[in-house]
Amino acid sequence: MNPSITPSAQDLWADIEAVRTQRPLVHCITNLVVMNFTANVLLAAGASPVMAHAHEEVADMAGIAQGVLLNIGTLDPYWVKSMQLAFAAAQAKGTPVVLDPVGAGATPYRNQALETLLETGAPAIIRGNASEIMSMVNVAVQSRGVDSSAHADDAVSTAQALAQRTDGTVCASGATDHILHADGRHVTLRNGHEWMTRITGVGCALTALITAVHAVQPDAWRATVAGMAWMGVAGEMAASKAQTLGVGSMAVFLLDTLQQLREEEFVARLQLAQASH
Amino acid sequence: MNPSITPSAQDLWADIEAVRTQRPLVHCITNLVVMNFTANVLLAAGASPVMAHAHEEVADMAGIAQGVLLNIGTLDPYWVKSMQLAFAAAQAKGTPVVLDPVGAGATPYRNQALETLLETGAPAIIRGNASEIMSMVNVAVQSRGVDSSAHADDAVSTAQALAQRTDGTVCASGATDHILHADGRHVTLRNGHEWMTRITGVGCALTALITAVHAVQPDAWRATVAGMAWMGVAGEMAASKAQTLGVGSMAVFLLDTLQQLREEEFVARLQLAQASH
Amino acid sequence: MNPSITPSAQDLWADIEAVRTQRPLVHCITNLVVMNFTANVLLAAGASPVMAHAHEEVADMAGIAQGVLLNIGTLDPYWVKSMQLAFAAAQAKGTPVVLDPVGAGATPYRNQALETLLETGAPAIIRGNASEIMSMVNVAVQSRGVDSSAHADDAVSTAQALAQRTDGTVCASGATDHILHADGRHVTLRNGHEWMTRITGVGCALTALITAVHAVQPDAWRATVAGMAWMGVAGEMAASKAQTLGVGSMAVFLLDTLQQLREEEFVARLQLAQASH
Repeated sequence: MNPSITPSAQDLWADIEAVRTQRPLVHCITNLVVMNFTANVLLAAGASPVMAHAHEEVADMAGIAQGVLLNIGTLDPYWVKSMQLAFAAAQAKGTPVVLDPVGAGATPYRNQALETLLETGAPAIIRGNASEIMSMVNVAVQSRGVDSSAHADDAVSTAQALAQRTDGTVCASGATDHILHADGRHVTLRNGHEWMTRITGVGCALTALITAVHAVQPDAWRATVAGMAWMGVAGEMAASKAQTLGVGSMAVFLLDTLQQLREEEFVARLQLAQASH
Repeated sequence: MNPSITPSAQDLWADIEAVRTQRPLVHCITNLVVMNFTANVLLAAGASPVMAHAHEEVADMAGIAQGVLLNIGTLDPYWVKSMQLAFAAAQAKGTPVVLDPVGAGATPYRNQALETLLETGAPAIIRGNASEIMSMVNVAVQSRGVDSSAHADDAVSTAQALAQRTDGTVCASGATDHILHADGRHVTLRNGHEWMTRITGVGCALTALITAVHAVQPDAWRATVAGMAWMGVAGEMAASKAQTLGVGSMAVFLLDTLQQLREEEFVARLQLAQASH
Repeated sequence: MNPSITPSAQDLWADIEAVRTQRPLVHCITNLVVMNFTANVLLAAGASPVMAHAHEEVADMAGIAQGVLLNIGTLDPYWVKSMQLAFAAAQAKGTPVVLDPVGAGATPYRNQALETLLETGAPAIIRGNASEIMSMVNVAVQSRGVDSSAHADDAVSTAQALAQRTDGTVCASGATDHILHADGRHVTLRNGHEWMTRITGVGCALTALITAVHAVQPDAWRATVAGMAWMGVAGEMAASKAQTLGVGSMAVFLLDTLQQLREEEFVARLQLAQASH
């Protein structure tokens, strides 16, 4: 594929429409803090979420899903094993697996768990903030819990290294999002609003949304661009509506907007650009 | 009891009022996705929720509750054991147990867990979507995660068989809800709005609400009709208010409406009918 | 310290401002029902929440946090051990630990777990409703799940005994909040609104908010007064705004208000008084 081809807003809109009409089943093994919001984001977007983690059924559930999300936010040994079982089952069926390395770098245990998952298989997509992406390629970053202490721009070279390792797509999100693929494609996206970091689980739910798009759009990189753009545009519209109210109202409006977003709004707001190297 | 007697809107309203004034304590062993929303639905309705699952205390907690909800949405062996312990403790005290078979049919493990629970005791009420109810009597249904792939009308005969097995009430919910009892009573309810399936946990919280009603209304079938009607009417009012906004706002308005619903609104909107066979 | 000195509204506002500007990292080991709301309250307030419970990392996470919250709402043996490990790690670093004894008195297991935690270390602050505080000093209280069956005024002498035991601050919250320290300081606060008990997790999130304030204000008692006042004032403003809507809207407005609260509103509404003995 020609790395220079940036998808058009209409291309990305077609992916959003595909989620709405095909309603993919997305199996989420995610953290305890964001399960509810993640399910609501997927439902607002038109997808069908299912959460399951028992070792006795997690492979079966991954086997009937069109996409599998792994998120280590509140990991423990039982849940890491759940993720490994789902990952293996999904790979055996050719179902895409998307990884959200929440809090990578914050503790040695998180880094070990991520290494275990990367040894289990190659995630089609990894999305994290700059600190998380940098931690995943052993760049020493002063992590601070689950919030980023670095700028996404600083994570570009490590994101490229990570994409090479997985032969897939990596997204380092921030004020400017960088979306890179192992084949060299690289765009930046400048949608979104800083208040999105003041609502818990927006990043986690974003990774789930990308999983839903990849369930209907086989190109992992393009699915990531579409999912990031969908959430970014909806986020800035929700923030604008909540300006005089606050972040509580914004979270509600974000779900509203993910559901109700129209093509002309999406096209008018999209700020996507080919990255220059 | 005469199977032909359909409760009046005023009868059902009396049950709603009883929840508001008696504030029953409802012990919920439910899934990780919907715990927060379930607690908020019960509180908005006037009930008092408590969640507890430790094997060391789950029987004690069930013992002080007026109703026990079991929901297998994110089951694993520890939690299935918790449900068994609570179930046995509740039965020993004569406290009603209500079962929500989330995702029945999606994996063999779910079906086994449900069989284990049905061998532990007889739930006073079982509420699920059509796929779930059909799976519980071994009808081959193509399940799709936790969303239904069948119409509630198709589940009537299996719901009847299940009600016979438990000698209790079974509700197969959908666009039309069917509420049946082992003694032959059977009504349909046509309240609600399709957006209720676009908010995670509405079904799960509905089963919790039914548990709260049954805690104050000894007749399991009538309590189920009252709980279903309360949520159905509140859901359509919330959807109407959120029409130009979206499903995020609707979830907020649903809690508002459960709390603020007035008798005249309830009576005017109720669409309850004797089922014809 | 002179027990007669009541902090001014301006003193307390300075603590609120300190949370907003310093954004302390608060490690929460809390219950499954309220994790999402707790994280959103901390984010709205300007703090940075992180949830982690794996025995492999919980000490590391507590070690990088500026405050640690322990909440036993949905405890089980694994999580009690997580709390012990975090507690010990925090004490070793001098990081303040705040305890929310949710449901104390409801079951023997809860009381044992609390005793285990109190043997692990001395929480800088304990905040609970009257039933919970009374249960912690072995006062026989008819507990009713996680809601209080006693008035905060009845808990004053037991709160004093508990503060002596921990040599710290104890808050018995209710219509009137009592905030006491081992050194004799004792104020009452009359802000808030009864609907705050109709939204799940307000109490739990309040304890998390106090933890965030104590992370930036070394005096545990004053931090508790500031956190309680912040939530109380925000709660009554949110209730006022949601009066004609309901408790669902109020939960949204509470997050908005925690974020947007201005000094003049806070000063005008604060109802803080020296307790008379």
